[in-house]
Amino acid sequence: MGLIVQKFGGTSVANIERIQNVAKRVKKTKDEGNDVVIVLSAMAGETNRLIELAKSIQKAPDPRELDVLLATGEQVSIALFSMAAKEVGLKAVSFLGYQIPIQTDPAHGKARIHEIPTEKLKKAISSGAIPVVAGFQGIDPEGDITTLGRGGSDTTAVALAVALGADMCEIYTDVPGVFTTDPNICRLARKIDKISYEEMLELASLGAKVLEIRSVEFAMRYKMPIHVRSSFSDEPGTMVVEEDESMEKILVSAVTYSRNEARITISKVPDKPGIAAKIFSPVTDANIVVDMIIQNTRAGDLTDLTFTVARSDYERAMEIVDKVAKEIGAERVAGDPHIAKVSIVGVGMKNHAGVAAKMFRILSDHGINILMISTSEIKISCVIDEKYTELAVRALHEGFGLDKNNEQ
Amino acid sequence: MGLIVQKFGGTSVANIERIQNVAKRVKKTKDEGNDVVIVLSAMAGETNRLIELAKSIQKAPDPRELDVLLATGEQVSIALFSMAAKEVGLKAVSFLGYQIPIQTDPAHGKARIHEIPTEKLKKAISSGAIPVVAGFQGIDPEGDITTLGRGGSDTTAVALAVALGADMCEIYTDVPGVFTTDPNICRLARKIDKISYEEMLELASLGAKVLEIRSVEFAMRYKMPIHVRSSFSDEPGTMVVEEDESMEKILVSAVTYSRNEARITISKVPDKPGIAAKIFSPVTDANIVVDMIIQNTRAGDLTDLTFTVARSDYERAMEIVDKVAKEIGAERVAGDPHIAKVSIVGVGMKNHAGVAAKMFRILSDHGINILMISTSEIKISCVIDEKYTELAVRALHEGFGLDKNNEQ
Repeated sequence: MGLIVQKFGGTSVANIERIQNVAKRVKKTKDEGNDVVIVLSAMAGETNRLIELAKSIQKAPDPRELDVLLATGEQVSIALFSMAAKEVGLKAVSFLGYQIPIQTDPAHGKARIHEIPTEKLKKAISSGAIPVVAGFQGIDPEGDITTLGRGGSDTTAVALAVALGADMCEIYTDVPGVFTTDPNICRLARKIDKISYEEMLELASLGAKVLEIRSVEFAMRYKMPIHVRSSFSDEPGTMVVEEDESMEKILVSAVTYSRNEARITISKVPDKPGIAAKIFSPVTDANIVVDMIIQNTRAGDLTDLTFTVARSDYERAMEIVDKVAKEIGAERVAGDPHIAKVSIVGVGMKNHAGVAAKMFRILSDHGINILMISTSEIKISCVIDEKYTELAVRALHEGFGLDKNNEQ
Repeated sequence: MGLIVQKFGGTSVANIERIQNVAKRVKKTKDEGNDVVIVLSAMAGETNRLIELAKSIQKAPDPRELDVLLATGEQVSIALFSMAAKEVGLKAVSFLGYQIPIQTDPAHGKARIHEIPTEKLKKAISSGAIPVVAGFQGIDPEGDITTLGRGGSDTTAVALAVALGADMCEIYTDVPGVFTTDPNICRLARKIDKISYEEMLELASLGAKVLEIRSVEFAMRYKMPIHVRSSFSDEPGTMVVEEDESMEKILVSAVTYSRNEARITISKVPDKPGIAAKIFSPVTDANIVVDMIIQNTRAGDLTDLTFTVARSDYERAMEIVDKVAKEIGAERVAGDPHIAKVSIVGVGMKNHAGVAAKMFRILSDHGINILMISTSEIKISCVIDEKYTELAVRALHEGFGLDKNNEQ
């Protein structure tokens, strides 16, 4: 008995049959005595289809009009789902962003939610109805449609759960939960029953697509429990909650990796104050995100700078850096688009020494050379040659005992 | 120089290329010094696709949610068109129904426009922008999305033109204008240069699909000139305007026909007061529209009642009438689903005797038997055997000189 916000992703509403199945699942939750609010994504593939249409007209589609276009995806979902819900005997009523209204800033394509008045939703709930809310969309102070960016429906769901004081936010997806690593690479990957917000945040930053990063930030700030689970099964998934004692006992919760990486090195840069700014300003001005940066000082006031960017930005970044290198009198620019990043994440690291050393030893034992290292309080990332990705992931997963159980 | 509302139908925005062509056409109008407001339909086929989706979930889709669903069609059009307009250098800005807002009653699927505030549109126009308005949609007093019914974008365009005090409402479609008859049946059909609101209203009632009937009523009430023309050519189309002297000289402006007709006869009905209500109430209660009705009195307080319905309603109507006939003691029910209705329309009829006689004679000269007749001030319709449809249309078109020129 409580108030539950349930969000269903694009694959969960990909076709009529799945929409009907989701309606049955929602009915079950309602029949168990809960109040329910539904948040939906666009049907799988729809957002990409619309983006293609837009790009066939404008290479860089007008941001305001692109949001008007993309918002139709969720609009279709909530209308069809509300019909399906009525067919199974539920009293459902759809809500678009402007009808609640979900108030955002005017940053089209990456808007942030400012406020969600709850009067209309609460009125609907207390009348016994199930509000079916379009994810991903809001309106700005001018009344223009905004969208929250990829995965934005997760944020809509968590923000709604917080605004309504819900007991739980359930995120339904096409996988059974958060895994200790990618099951496609490591057969021994296990579903994690419980994970802290901080760890989930690191995993999301490292490219785990199961939850959108801003939704985790939002949940962490307001301590809203998230239950990530499969819409195709009744099995419990992964609870994303506040850190507790049991979690601290676990050194490493998950191993993750990213192949979308490329490395650029500028050698023998005259080491003067402001040189880093000179190199990185034009790169970030071109909307290229720089991830890891390492600086090695050589003899004679010369320095080497190495950094990583997304592989899709590699060529553009190389062009920019080549130009800058000449301007600042650097000797040489070298790049490598065939690298990968493997990371281990765990709140247990905070209180345990030697986790990093263990990681380096495991990689070394398997003959894997570490090219770059970056650490946070609960995460260690190593850049390696791309061809070792699977080997590294499996070795770390086994080495930190993730193939056994959560208690080490 | 003036303010022109231009409405483009589904075939005019059916794909990206056509949308881009429409943008170029709008630019031409703007470059000629006019202010322009655009109204768009959904891309051809999209509304039907959405209806199919809805019907695969609910046989009779929930009206509120169906409107939420269907409104996405025009939303996609205005977003894509605004992008295309920007690509050709226009300052375009899209408006959804709720953003203007186009205020309607809450009759989902057949809403009527109550009011259109023009502040936002006028502000956009005076800033040099081209408002691109979603046709077919509005919002009701609750803030729910409504739609105006099939062809509703025509009504949106005319209502906007009236509200803005525009000089002209141009309706762009896939035909060059209004024709003296269907060119598919009669090779000698000619485009009509100018037609009165009243005649256009009759033609729309008789099934001519070039203009939605409510848009003509709206234009007539507020004397808004409509220019119906092709979006694929620069040729002028048909002006729909107030009746003038030149029109009165023309006996017949157009010949039209409908094959979507069926006839039902109830014979030897005891002729008591209220008998017609007893027969027709259950028919109209079943949402079946009765078109023509003829009553013949026989000897001995018995009467025969003959009426027509849409052919698609024929079987349902027969079932109902069979039941009623037994209740009221009628002798016999007979039906014929293979009839057609041919009509001639012209404001000139008002002041000319003998038009009806001429029509009957032309049909008779071609061996066509008239089964039923119905007339209005500017229209005569005859029900005939379906197999004579083409023959009747060609004979009337030639007989009234429509293959020559407008002055008879």
